[in-house]
Amino acid sequence: MHHDKIILNHGGGGLLTKELISNLFYTYFKNDILLEQGDSAILNTEAGHLAFTTDSYVVDPIFFPGGNIGKLAVCGTVNDLSVSGAKPLYLSAGFIIEEGLSMNDLEEIVRSMAEEAKKAGVQIVCGDTKVVNRGKCDKVFINTSGIGILEDRHKEIGSGRKIQVGDKIIINGFVGDHGIAVLGARKSLNFQTEIKSDCASLSHIIQEVLAEVDVHFMRDATRGGLATVLNEIAEHRNFGIEINEDEIPVREETQGVCELLGFDPLYLANEGKVVMVVPADKVEVCLSILQNNELAKDSRTIGEIVESYPGKVILKTSIGGRRFVELNTGEQLPRIC
Amino acid sequence: MHHDKIILNHGGGGLLTKELISNLFYTYFKNDILLEQGDSAILNTEAGHLAFTTDSYVVDPIFFPGGNIGKLAVCGTVNDLSVSGAKPLYLSAGFIIEEGLSMNDLEEIVRSMAEEAKKAGVQIVCGDTKVVNRGKCDKVFINTSGIGILEDRHKEIGSGRKIQVGDKIIINGFVGDHGIAVLGARKSLNFQTEIKSDCASLSHIIQEVLAEVDVHFMRDATRGGLATVLNEIAEHRNFGIEINEDEIPVREETQGVCELLGFDPLYLANEGKVVMVVPADKVEVCLSILQNNELAKDSRTIGEIVESYPGKVILKTSIGGRRFVELNTGEQLPRIC
Repeated sequence: MHHDKIILNHGGGGLLTKELISNLFYTYFKNDILLEQGDSAILNTEAGHLAFTTDSYVVDPIFFPGGNIGKLAVCGTVNDLSVSGAKPLYLSAGFIIEEGLSMNDLEEIVRSMAEEAKKAGVQIVCGDTKVVNRGKCDKVFINTSGIGILEDRHKEIGSGRKIQVGDKIIINGFVGDHGIAVLGARKSLNFQTEIKSDCASLSHIIQEVLAEVDVHFMRDATRGGLATVLNEIAEHRNFGIEINEDEIPVREETQGVCELLGFDPLYLANEGKVVMVVPADKVEVCLSILQNNELAKDSRTIGEIVESYPGKVILKTSIGGRRFVELNTGEQLPRIC
Repeated sequence: MHHDKIILNHGGGGLLTKELISNLFYTYFKNDILLEQGDSAILNTEAGHLAFTTDSYVVDPIFFPGGNIGKLAVCGTVNDLSVSGAKPLYLSAGFIIEEGLSMNDLEEIVRSMAEEAKKAGVQIVCGDTKVVNRGKCDKVFINTSGIGILEDRHKEIGSGRKIQVGDKIIINGFVGDHGIAVLGARKSLNFQTEIKSDCASLSHIIQEVLAEVDVHFMRDATRGGLATVLNEIAEHRNFGIEINEDEIPVREETQGVCELLGFDPLYLANEGKVVMVVPADKVEVCLSILQNNELAKDSRTIGEIVESYPGKVILKTSIGGRRFVELNTGEQLPRIC
């Protein structure tokens, strides 16, 4: 569909985002590194491989149960490097601040960033501050870009080239927590929830897994949720993916809110969830490493790579049916991250 | 002065910006790399020395004579890497777009970025797109972060440690063009000008100079203008700087607009101007390389590093007087870059 103007869905992480990126950004910026479409760009320098990634954070509200925009800005970029197989090392921090933001709020955000960077084992090494007039942004937007170092044996993880039929798909816990926590914090939506954002840096747990398991692919399930990541895997490499509804960890409360508001938990954003594609014979060791860690204690195998239905994601439902899980074409939740 | 809230001047590049960075960002994020306060962070990795930098661009209006926000976003970050002595190689591009932006405008911006990246010899290798509701940003904000590679012999350029008394200060042309062009493009200010932004990537010309001249320090004179860069040099290394008003290249038209509107050209933003500190015996070769290039044909020596008045910038005026050029403490022009 042709659009003369940018609409909210162009930023939702679904089909329209994908179209905008392919038709505009890839068309003009095209180069071999960009077109790999990984979570990070892989830079092959003379002495080693680097991963490089960027994300802007515009979450509304800027404080929510389980985190704030600053913590999110560190976790999100650390995780993008981590799922590329890299060890995250350095972050930049670019602030666009609305005139009138309270200095206490800004300090709390910056404090959270410093704390999370320490946890994740990264240093914030450069930054930039812009201030715009009142009403020209919304409190604060933060961009973080990150650099990580990539061992030679991990450099194909982000490309998905190692994915094979029979590989199992693992997720490290409950889906949708971040989406529900942010929605609950919006005063416009009239519901209350105990659910906290899962916002967390997965750098250490992913490095632990990589030390023992030949992970074939990883991606963090953020904007667009689990459904979007699975579709990206299926399309990009042209395999089918079969997942079992009964195995997908969804909190009862998340399910309840979703039924109330008409959301599907598979499309809700997460900020501490990684989808791993691992060889079948490595599932046990992978799960045992994950389940030993607080950030992944509810890890489960949720499905596998199949030969049938190339490019499609098939959900085996609780009542024994099967349906396709499509890339989201409808209304997205804006400013969830 | 204590502020409870962020005000526009916190983003103006003057004293308040400096205070915000020192009191807040450096306090929480502190590490040896960040505290070098260079235009780029210098990363000593196994893969050699890397320069890493970030900038968010919020210029208003997004199109102006001589460029647009996209061209600016490439030039600005390329120049931050270049003045650190690095050869720029890779950029990220993070877009925050307001719902309703015309697709044609976005395409023109992206086209300019691709064109300028090609000119500068860099690849845009990763990106991010967010869309916010109408009225929650202003058309489009762009963050670019960049990575460059740094030869061992250039790794101290950004630190300023090589600056010595007697070194000469060179600028590659007229100051204030970008500031005047952007102000002229604002419909709110009722003046017209023929002046175009000097927005340009200086990567090639800087590399040419570095091949022949042991440059002791460089910085691009963007937000806050020439006066701010000179003050940063003087304060950071605690030398004095003496500049000659008569030698500073200012267009007659810039001077006229400044007199009319009450600006000082020394504080106006540039986006294609580099201040170089070079040993006295290298001035001739440096100027001859610069003046051979279209982007630097009006290069001139404007002053020198002196022992007296450490930390201060002294201007020898046309009529023979002397005055301090202070870091700007007054009203800044918001959203000039």
